[in-house]
Amino acid sequence: MPYVNIKITKDGVTPEQKGQLIKGVTTLLQKVLNKNPTTTFVIIEEVETDNWGIAGEQVTARRNREK
Amino acid sequence: MPYVNIKITKDGVTPEQKGQLIKGVTTLLQKVLNKNPTTTFVIIEEVETDNWGIAGEQVTARRNREK
Amino acid sequence: MPYVNIKITKDGVTPEQKGQLIKGVTTLLQKVLNKNPTTTFVIIEEVETDNWGIAGEQVTARRNREK
Amino acid sequence: MPYVNIKITKDGVTPEQKGQLIKGVTTLLQKVLNKNPTTTFVIIEEVETDNWGIAGEQVTARRNREK
Amino acid sequence: MPYVNIKITKDGVTPEQKGQLIKGVTTLLQKVLNKNPTTTFVIIEEVETDNWGIAGEQVTARRNREK
Amino acid sequence: MPYVNIKITKDGVTPEQKGQLIKGVTTLLQKVLNKNPTTTFVIIEEVETDNWGIAGEQVTARRNREK
Repeated sequence: MPYVNIKITKDGVTPEQKGQLIKGVTTLLQKVLNKNPTTTFVIIEEVETDNWGIAGEQVTARRNREK
Repeated sequence: MPYVNIKITKDGVTPEQKGQLIKGVTTLLQKVLNKNPTTTFVIIEEVETDNWGIAGEQVTARRNREK
Repeated sequence: MPYVNIKITKDGVTPEQKGQLIKGVTTLLQKVLNKNPTTTFVIIEEVETDNWGIAGEQVTARRNREK
Repeated sequence: MPYVNIKITKDGVTPEQKGQLIKGVTTLLQKVLNKNPTTTFVIIEEVETDNWGIAGEQVTARRNREK
Repeated sequence: MPYVNIKITKDGVTPEQKGQLIKGVTTLLQKVLNKNPTTTFVIIEEVETDNWGIAGEQVTARRNREK
Repeated sequence: MPYVNIKITKDGVTPEQKGQLIKGVTTLLQKVLNKNPTTTFVIIEEVETDNWGIAGEQVTARRNREK
């Protein structure tokens, strides 16, 4: 009965892509650990780029700089 | 000083219902473990049904199919 | 299909008490939001008092001072 | 490679303040534990006051009462 | 720069299996969302069966009953 | 009433260092957002290097290779 939480930046991910992540992670847990898909939960959280920091800097700033 | 995080699907839960969850969990922790309500935190997170998967499938799809 | 995460300090909580928390939270979600217990997950995490801070201070220190 | 999750109430925190939190936490981890900022993640989550409970009460109610 | 948290019951999962989960999830995020593996974090948490509840019951009890 | 969760690898971090992280984060939230330390929670979680992946690889393997 695994629980998986995926946090990604909010970037226009489509419902189809979310469906692929959910299916992919569930299948992976079944293959590697024989976990029952029926009780596998996957929750995707989309985070604003202002709210995500890496290397001490907001992703928003990082991306602007890289343009 | 417990910390409780409740994730539910985003389904029009009312402020009153949220208040009942918060009160109920805080009381439960006091009754079972004698935890001080003053330092009990409860955070409710509402998740879009596209972002929640169970059995390898998005809740959105699951609900559509069950209609 | 709620997911609940309860963090408490590591203090000799018994398996019976954990069972009561799990049952209590699951029942609460059923009563308040009509959530199906079959797909309600509850995970309890016990945290060392050295690793939990409140008011800028470790719980270990706080408790020693209050003795 | 630390991962830090900060949950605060949704209160009009500015992008600049978020940037200061991200920078401050990353610097702290470098100073105290010599952690490499390049692989330090900080995620800020803003929670509606209806969804945050303390002492068995929603922050919304608590604030209204204190007015 | 995704962050993935996988919670599973503590069941003798081997380091090799953990490596497969980490590699699998990272590859999945690259394929579906074109995420850079260099900044993809995966954290696996193993939870005692006494601390995991489903359907209002501890996994320990559930498994004993199913034997 | 912020809640902060810090995940780091399990590497012999001392209680004193944990105390410094807790104090530092609490002070930062007070300075940047004027948050009341009394209701600021900080929880530190130490994760085995086998359970932490970056760039599709376990930290254990990454460190062995870098030796």
